[in-house]
Amino acid sequence: MIIQLQPSIKSEEKQAIITKVNSLGYKTTEVITQRGSYLVGIGKKDFDLRQVGYMKGIADIHRVSDDYKLVSRKWKVEPTAIDLGEGVFIGNGNLSIMAGPCSIENEQQVDLTINHLQANGVRIMRGGVFKPRSSPYAFRGLGIDGLKMWHARARAAGIKIISEVMQVSQIEAMYPYVDVFQVGARNTQNFNLLDELGKVDKPVMIKRGISGTIEELLSSAEYVFSGGNEKLILCERGIRTYEKASRNTMDINAIPILKEKSHLPVVADPSHGIGIRDYVEPIALAALMAGADGIIYETHQRPEEAFSDGQQTLDFDESAQLIRKLKSAFELIASF
Amino acid sequence: MIIQLQPSIKSEEKQAIITKVNSLGYKTTEVITQRGSYLVGIGKKDFDLRQVGYMKGIADIHRVSDDYKLVSRKWKVEPTAIDLGEGVFIGNGNLSIMAGPCSIENEQQVDLTINHLQANGVRIMRGGVFKPRSSPYAFRGLGIDGLKMWHARARAAGIKIISEVMQVSQIEAMYPYVDVFQVGARNTQNFNLLDELGKVDKPVMIKRGISGTIEELLSSAEYVFSGGNEKLILCERGIRTYEKASRNTMDINAIPILKEKSHLPVVADPSHGIGIRDYVEPIALAALMAGADGIIYETHQRPEEAFSDGQQTLDFDESAQLIRKLKSAFELIASF
Amino acid sequence: MIIQLQPSIKSEEKQAIITKVNSLGYKTTEVITQRGSYLVGIGKKDFDLRQVGYMKGIADIHRVSDDYKLVSRKWKVEPTAIDLGEGVFIGNGNLSIMAGPCSIENEQQVDLTINHLQANGVRIMRGGVFKPRSSPYAFRGLGIDGLKMWHARARAAGIKIISEVMQVSQIEAMYPYVDVFQVGARNTQNFNLLDELGKVDKPVMIKRGISGTIEELLSSAEYVFSGGNEKLILCERGIRTYEKASRNTMDINAIPILKEKSHLPVVADPSHGIGIRDYVEPIALAALMAGADGIIYETHQRPEEAFSDGQQTLDFDESAQLIRKLKSAFELIASF
Amino acid sequence: MIIQLQPSIKSEEKQAIITKVNSLGYKTTEVITQRGSYLVGIGKKDFDLRQVGYMKGIADIHRVSDDYKLVSRKWKVEPTAIDLGEGVFIGNGNLSIMAGPCSIENEQQVDLTINHLQANGVRIMRGGVFKPRSSPYAFRGLGIDGLKMWHARARAAGIKIISEVMQVSQIEAMYPYVDVFQVGARNTQNFNLLDELGKVDKPVMIKRGISGTIEELLSSAEYVFSGGNEKLILCERGIRTYEKASRNTMDINAIPILKEKSHLPVVADPSHGIGIRDYVEPIALAALMAGADGIIYETHQRPEEAFSDGQQTLDFDESAQLIRKLKSAFELIASF
Repeated sequence: MIIQLQPSIKSEEKQAIITKVNSLGYKTTEVITQRGSYLVGIGKKDFDLRQVGYMKGIADIHRVSDDYKLVSRKWKVEPTAIDLGEGVFIGNGNLSIMAGPCSIENEQQVDLTINHLQANGVRIMRGGVFKPRSSPYAFRGLGIDGLKMWHARARAAGIKIISEVMQVSQIEAMYPYVDVFQVGARNTQNFNLLDELGKVDKPVMIKRGISGTIEELLSSAEYVFSGGNEKLILCERGIRTYEKASRNTMDINAIPILKEKSHLPVVADPSHGIGIRDYVEPIALAALMAGADGIIYETHQRPEEAFSDGQQTLDFDESAQLIRKLKSAFELIASF
Repeated sequence: MIIQLQPSIKSEEKQAIITKVNSLGYKTTEVITQRGSYLVGIGKKDFDLRQVGYMKGIADIHRVSDDYKLVSRKWKVEPTAIDLGEGVFIGNGNLSIMAGPCSIENEQQVDLTINHLQANGVRIMRGGVFKPRSSPYAFRGLGIDGLKMWHARARAAGIKIISEVMQVSQIEAMYPYVDVFQVGARNTQNFNLLDELGKVDKPVMIKRGISGTIEELLSSAEYVFSGGNEKLILCERGIRTYEKASRNTMDINAIPILKEKSHLPVVADPSHGIGIRDYVEPIALAALMAGADGIIYETHQRPEEAFSDGQQTLDFDESAQLIRKLKSAFELIASF
Repeated sequence: MIIQLQPSIKSEEKQAIITKVNSLGYKTTEVITQRGSYLVGIGKKDFDLRQVGYMKGIADIHRVSDDYKLVSRKWKVEPTAIDLGEGVFIGNGNLSIMAGPCSIENEQQVDLTINHLQANGVRIMRGGVFKPRSSPYAFRGLGIDGLKMWHARARAAGIKIISEVMQVSQIEAMYPYVDVFQVGARNTQNFNLLDELGKVDKPVMIKRGISGTIEELLSSAEYVFSGGNEKLILCERGIRTYEKASRNTMDINAIPILKEKSHLPVVADPSHGIGIRDYVEPIALAALMAGADGIIYETHQRPEEAFSDGQQTLDFDESAQLIRKLKSAFELIASF
Repeated sequence: MIIQLQPSIKSEEKQAIITKVNSLGYKTTEVITQRGSYLVGIGKKDFDLRQVGYMKGIADIHRVSDDYKLVSRKWKVEPTAIDLGEGVFIGNGNLSIMAGPCSIENEQQVDLTINHLQANGVRIMRGGVFKPRSSPYAFRGLGIDGLKMWHARARAAGIKIISEVMQVSQIEAMYPYVDVFQVGARNTQNFNLLDELGKVDKPVMIKRGISGTIEELLSSAEYVFSGGNEKLILCERGIRTYEKASRNTMDINAIPILKEKSHLPVVADPSHGIGIRDYVEPIALAALMAGADGIIYETHQRPEEAFSDGQQTLDFDESAQLIRKLKSAFELIASF
């Protein structure tokens, strides 16, 4: 059960609602976000919603039986749009293209990438400065100084930044320099990290776990939302299966299913979803056609020299062609 | 190694080639299909192809290191097109839509479906008369009499038939009444069935196994081709994974990978790939965008009354809308 | 619903039962096996079993809600034992060891293996004469002549034979020469083959599909049982997962679950379950400890020269050690 | 490459080795643990180890080609034993039983569990005070106060404590009260947490990721070891597969494989590995037989009232029976 509270609700009114809901066998969690105030009721008993709905201070009340509630479309049918400022939106009818290297490497690379994005009308740049690596001996990224360098250049160009945060202690340091915090596939169920991101007033994109279920992804988003941050984006990036002809198996099914179950925008990552440079384009187009609100992919001026993920990274010519095709496909979808 | 033989080759020339190839440490299999004659050489030693290539009776010679050979694009770069007659083709720039019920049920259903297909310009009808069912107590199809009834009506309407063959003993009986034999996901590695279909002069569409690899699908096609039948179509229909929000996980990655590895047409089955009626359309469109040559899906005049698979079957309105969108998407792809 | 009929039931009594059961909304299938006669009722409505149970000719009646029925423990709590003759049993407190090569290769190999088995008190020999192979160019087995040669030698030594049948047309030819028909992992859902094996009066061991579920394995057994053959053995042989450090993932969980859900004996195949020679012993012992009634594994006088599966085949010293340890572990279990 | 340094090595000797190794195209990481000093060399070029091995200050030098190195058996053939004090060891010929509730709930529960363990000779108690939960609305554990309460009681009884640490900030607070830090399946690739646990002088048990590979588990252990902590234990707890008859699929194969690839002790968790109370015993026995050094499982005085995981938790009678059987099986293995 989700109860949307009126902004003007008085504290004794809220207390009366909580008391009433508890008396019906439901536990309540109060959630205050950038956009509103909610009471989430957890319980199993069935009752007539009108028993509660008439009370003062309630804007709306909804039954939501899934384990995830605040991210469900059952109470919020209208899709959520995320406003990054300067006319950049994610979701709700916008085509969001996010491109850039796997790892931020140096100033020249950042400049070349920004030029490429600007020339092709892309407003969001991806890149890693903290890199989760299976081996402790691999390159772990430029860190916060790399992020600052990147941010200075991107801001000057009107480009927004999405970058991965790996642990709680990085949030505060990264905060001034990112437009979207990305939670990586290995951290989808790092619940402490999700809790802390719930307290932040910046958008968060959560990648599906390496073999996470669709329901687990939604539950992870619920963590952030119930912590107070409803600026959320979901990302399908391929799952682990027995098939070894591709790095991961892009779960194209997840896209329409997530769009149906949740009001949050859904972004697809074909670079990780298939992991092979030659096939990033068809998978990106497929994901858009399946209903994705945006595409995030890896591009680099010289993929063969990239510090990481070169095998799945497009060069700028391939990237420009992909952008052009994505725009055509987006127009086709709009015409349906 | 694949050696394409000249049609005019003399038997002593052929023998000389075999002797030579064997002397290089390669075993040879002779393959004669509807379209040509080949020697497939199996071995590991490396040698200069020109040692063999100069011999009389050879049209061309190619190195193919994969386990599958005759279905590989390494010797045949040009895509294969399958001609069903009356202007109906599969592959090589044609958009093939195959639609119809899971099970053929009765005359009225067949007539309604044929009318629907004709009204929407679809030339190939799918339908099962032998149904593989997990439980021995479930409906197993109308059998050969159902096929005859269906065929009489379809032929009159200029509609081609694709239907599943489950065992060797059905091939002869079905032969006059089908245009494409379908090998189902539970029979992808029924090697005896594949062997026998290699002797047939009708197209065969092989579905990927329930958890078959891409390489296994290609090896199954190799069985049929090396048996003498090169009229082959591959079909991606979703794989079994841990995710339970959909019936199967449509492996969208398989589409561009199969197209790259093989010269055979690739068809996608979104009905089984996701298994949920509401999402068949976006997955069909995604598969086309990923490079599929055709889409096979389930439709029924009243899905809720279908004998089987109703939960993933489109009604005729949904089907008509899907066809319209597929055609638009196909045009877009052609324009890229 | 399963109705066990009395051997002496009259045909009009049987008809009366069928009419009554149909009137309750249940379809009936009559099953006559080597051991008894049954009516299987398929339906969903709940009713008081005594409405039927009082009728003449009924020995017992049971509610079985699973999709599989005749193989369920819900109507037959007592474990089934399979009698191969000459004092060789599978299931119900016997330790069944089945060992031998992947492929039957020649007379010398058969003799050496039989000697090894006799020296170690093993009564059942495995071996393939029809080999399912992913590639059409691989060795496919010695065929029926190899089986005859093997059978002559095994019978003289009092050794029973288990061997794989791949297609319907092989059943009749193999029948005189095998003691147990094996259905391989690629044929678990070859329903025509299962149907035909239901008509045979010899034991059948069904391997779990390459990525078959436990429920699918039980449903495949139901096919054979409902066809008239209740001499059935189930075999866990590993499933396909994302993990590539082993050939398959031995699903050790399946063993106690199958034993709980079904009255049939359960055999484990550690050779395929892990696929690496050095680890066959610990996995065999683990499977026994988990409740398996028997172990089937590959052994060869010179594994490095075996025609197939050498990498997972024990030599005779390793085999003798495994047998010794299995016997000790079996004694321990009996003492619990 | 791993270079074990002599305790007495001089700093200029170490520098000379590093310079030499770098000149051969290898990067070096210096690792100082509680037990010794190492240089880990990362590179691909092949060279004669004696070029380096003669240098002063080197105790031993080994080639290790895997991505994980310090946890490999290639340089340390002798199994590692972890000493928890008061005669409690894990690994190297000891049978380690770790039992207790999923969640620590209250004082009475702790007392009852401790009594049960003492009565059955078990020296290590498991229990969670920080619980990772998919849903933000679920019980998240008693926290650090619960740990203190538990620790006071356990220490008085000579019982060691293993408990899960979920984030970096909990390490310091938990340190005085745990004997083994457990890293849960959702944190196996939480690299920041692993880094920090590398600085701690207490044993760490790392659970395999929910769908982690064997190699990823070893690489995660490498993180902790290369951070300075070699008191490591690996834990197999089941992986995610398509099979839904059990909560997870216990990867029994992983046990002998991990024992072969690494010198670290391997513990098995049958409670999570199968997730069904009735089958925990056979899976525990199977895991021991497959080579596990220890078994960790859930037990509770009243499983049906447990705050979490009751469906897979043994009552004390079942637990006592399991301990008795584990001891018998352990004796059998020792006798082999």
